[in-house]
Amino acid sequence: MTATAAEGIRRQRGRPGYDLESVLQVAVQVFNERGYDGASMEDLAKRLGIAKSAIYHHVSRKEELLRMALDRALDGWAGAAERAQELDAPAIVRLEMLVRGTMAVLETRLPYVTLLLRVRGNTEVERAALERRRSFDRLVASLMEEARRDGDIRADVDSKVTARLLSGMINSVVEWYRPGSSPTAPVSLADSACAIAFGGLRVPR
Amino acid sequence: MTATAAEGIRRQRGRPGYDLESVLQVAVQVFNERGYDGASMEDLAKRLGIAKSAIYHHVSRKEELLRMALDRALDGWAGAAERAQELDAPAIVRLEMLVRGTMAVLETRLPYVTLLLRVRGNTEVERAALERRRSFDRLVASLMEEARRDGDIRADVDSKVTARLLSGMINSVVEWYRPGSSPTAPVSLADSACAIAFGGLRVPR
Repeated sequence: MTATAAEGIRRQRGRPGYDLESVLQVAVQVFNERGYDGASMEDLAKRLGIAKSAIYHHVSRKEELLRMALDRALDGWAGAAERAQELDAPAIVRLEMLVRGTMAVLETRLPYVTLLLRVRGNTEVERAALERRRSFDRLVASLMEEARRDGDIRADVDSKVTARLLSGMINSVVEWYRPGSSPTAPVSLADSACAIAFGGLRVPR
Repeated sequence: MTATAAEGIRRQRGRPGYDLESVLQVAVQVFNERGYDGASMEDLAKRLGIAKSAIYHHVSRKEELLRMALDRALDGWAGAAERAQELDAPAIVRLEMLVRGTMAVLETRLPYVTLLLRVRGNTEVERAALERRRSFDRLVASLMEEARRDGDIRADVDSKVTARLLSGMINSVVEWYRPGSSPTAPVSLADSACAIAFGGLRVPR
């Protein structure tokens, strides 16, 4: 690399809006709008108002951006899982903590979670993400099993179905939740979701 | 139309697998696989193993197939709504009946509901479908309001959020439910969904 090229990159790195973080933020937006397959590096460059080469300075392929974006959602979930597992409390309490953690990730990393939930496993990166997602689902299922053995979760519904309905309810939030325009205030979205998921709609008689 | 052409169509009409119903069934499959925009009449013809002209005998445009497919889901929901409204019972009972009706439509018309849930409003037909969907959502919201006034639905969660979480849970079923391979037997999917939605995961203490 010539001294001039290196200088150019140093300047680029220092320029706000051109660092990897900004590229990633725009990439996840464009992937969500057009679908990953439909979005080209050209599209990203246009949206950022920079040359394609400036993106290739950060990543060698579009798939790297996909991997980083999916990891951002999955790392969030993994962190929530770790915190829930470390808790010295009954499984039902750890499960509720996990649901709250998942909701927090959804609120703070919405575009990344949206992208993750649309992944169908067409590429190696997508399949790796689906495998991490499944291991998260297995944790939810095992906490649920434990809570059921403790007598804290209803036994009249298949536990797999229960886990799927719970995940479905939580994940559906990406369809309508927009940060800053929450209709849930002053009750947090996590409180609302936990109240409905654990306590149900109906007022107990 | 020449006598020979009419004869050809008569034969086609009589031939199993070539009536409008079969065309529609295949169309909704192809739309779900490739996305409506990505699916061409050529794709449909290939899948059916017939000439494009044989499809144009039934419909003049691809959008007509979309409209018919979306209506199949929406008519199902409208029927469930009508039956729930006719019921002489408290709002909470009518709401549960509506949830059961929605689940039944989901089970029997899965590909049509899947297609409906992916509609984003890109065309006139899609916008009309979204409007019908919104009027269904308004009914759910109004039943919920009434049940809340009756003291039957918890008042600690915003009613819009409650309605969205409930719809989200029910609609998420399209992601994993496959007719005939239900893990819910002997408890029906509708029973499971109602138990979780109305009663919650947690065993009441």
